[in-house]
Amino acid sequence: MHENEIIERISRVFGSSRRKKVRLGLGDDAALWRARTGYEVVLTCDWFLEGSHFLRDKHPADAVGWKCLARAVSDIAAMGGEPRCFLLSMALPPNLTGKWLEEFLRGLRRASAALPCELAGGDTTRQERALIQVTVVGEVPRGRALLRSGARVGDSIFVSGRLGQADAGLEELKRRNGLARATDESLRKHLYPEPRLALGQWLAKRRLATAAMDLSDGLSSDLPRLCAASGVGARVDVDSLPLSSHERRARAVELALHGGDDYELLFTVSRRKLGRVPRSYRGLRLTRIGEITRGKTILAVKDGVPRKLETRGWDPFRK
Amino acid sequence: MHENEIIERISRVFGSSRRKKVRLGLGDDAALWRARTGYEVVLTCDWFLEGSHFLRDKHPADAVGWKCLARAVSDIAAMGGEPRCFLLSMALPPNLTGKWLEEFLRGLRRASAALPCELAGGDTTRQERALIQVTVVGEVPRGRALLRSGARVGDSIFVSGRLGQADAGLEELKRRNGLARATDESLRKHLYPEPRLALGQWLAKRRLATAAMDLSDGLSSDLPRLCAASGVGARVDVDSLPLSSHERRARAVELALHGGDDYELLFTVSRRKLGRVPRSYRGLRLTRIGEITRGKTILAVKDGVPRKLETRGWDPFRK
Repeated sequence: MHENEIIERISRVFGSSRRKKVRLGLGDDAALWRARTGYEVVLTCDWFLEGSHFLRDKHPADAVGWKCLARAVSDIAAMGGEPRCFLLSMALPPNLTGKWLEEFLRGLRRASAALPCELAGGDTTRQERALIQVTVVGEVPRGRALLRSGARVGDSIFVSGRLGQADAGLEELKRRNGLARATDESLRKHLYPEPRLALGQWLAKRRLATAAMDLSDGLSSDLPRLCAASGVGARVDVDSLPLSSHERRARAVELALHGGDDYELLFTVSRRKLGRVPRSYRGLRLTRIGEITRGKTILAVKDGVPRKLETRGWDPFRK
Repeated sequence: MHENEIIERISRVFGSSRRKKVRLGLGDDAALWRARTGYEVVLTCDWFLEGSHFLRDKHPADAVGWKCLARAVSDIAAMGGEPRCFLLSMALPPNLTGKWLEEFLRGLRRASAALPCELAGGDTTRQERALIQVTVVGEVPRGRALLRSGARVGDSIFVSGRLGQADAGLEELKRRNGLARATDESLRKHLYPEPRLALGQWLAKRRLATAAMDLSDGLSSDLPRLCAASGVGARVDVDSLPLSSHERRARAVELALHGGDDYELLFTVSRRKLGRVPRSYRGLRLTRIGEITRGKTILAVKDGVPRKLETRGWDPFRK
């Protein structure tokens, strides 16, 4: 199969979307897209590499397609933005250009339709292992983007959903033999994460959050990043963490603190607006898990005892 | 070295640009950028992979940094656009995070300043081989973008500069031992290509070209793409090709027809506007090399004899 044929197949799979906002997509040197006035453009990109981010003998190609787009779009959600279009860069070994590519494109197309986020273009080449890179373009009303840098001393720290479920799913998947079943409920959050777009947009629109980011590498890796950007510290109440309900408690706490891939939102709210945060937003639980503090230390308080929170989330250069 | 430290190093190298147009870059979930009204956004991306697009023992890291951005920006030139900002996705083996990374970033920063095109963000991870992917965001006045699809029967076909020089440089580089010297004139076009931004913008502004694209994979691969997009054929006059002057004539013709990586512009001009195309634009030679024809065949005429032009340019899935 030649590069041109792969591009034709991608065009076929994505060709039938009804309302195209991208004026020119695949098949030219570049894509053309019209930004809206009154908005800022949000740009983000994410690697999704065989061996690092997915395992070819464990992860269904359909889930690889869904997740590579969903996790990049999660960064748009974290900014309070709406996704508009994406570029897909793929490097594939020749034996993945058949059935695997077809299933991958099916999952990608479902994500593209659901989020929604239109395919605008990309680049295709060959490698021994599958490399996927997704760039997403979104928009946010001017001046309303949720940044990491706005947290202030005394703000409450919130998370959406439950923490640790995705990592529990990954462990389950590694224990089993062969390809995961896409329908398995315990793997759903690991295989098919859902970026918290509605929540992010609502927080931005209501100016409720002083800072926000998405949890991709685990709370113990991501919270220090938000704190560093804001020049503050934090105290996390471990007993308040919204845990995955399928695990032993001690294990569930570990997963909630250090497990990656949840794509829930982490955000801070000032004392003045605390009363406006509901227990859930559109069925998605919102939990207060701690408070922003002076200084630079991140403490985890368990049974009343504060300890320094160790960073043990995902870091590709540490593993 | 951890992921956070690599990001800090990138920030240090790129931090001192004077006029920042990207409101929020490295260090948050996504970048924020304001598009101008009256313009369309141009989006393009390119792989630059060790082993496929560069050789670690031959290509200086500085040239890898320059070229990964320059070749992606060439797609913006081909649309008649201006580059604005870019996202850098890097996957590196741990032994390249020291001196190699420093030199790579120096070359990248020079390209970023020269084109100019501001670093807006990216993603960094680890792999055994260096993987680089660049996404460029540009702008073009509304409705003025140069497309591949506008060539009509009777249009003249033009190219800028000379063809085959970059590929001649690659062959030279492969013959030698060790790392190439960045100052070697015969390798300059291969190591440090210059996207034809001024020419592309001029063609778009004057509405001179009916179609355009950049020559990245070689004339015999790229001209058929322009013709397919326009639903036309072409006749190339081989004797008129602007050849590299350092090679034997027969070899120079081969390189001009099939050599990749030139990043010159290929464009078509209607009969009515033919007289308005000068012999050179800002010192860059413009050469009429043939004509758009009815049908779908691409012919190469040599010594008065027409032959079907074989596609023998770069295709990663054919090699």
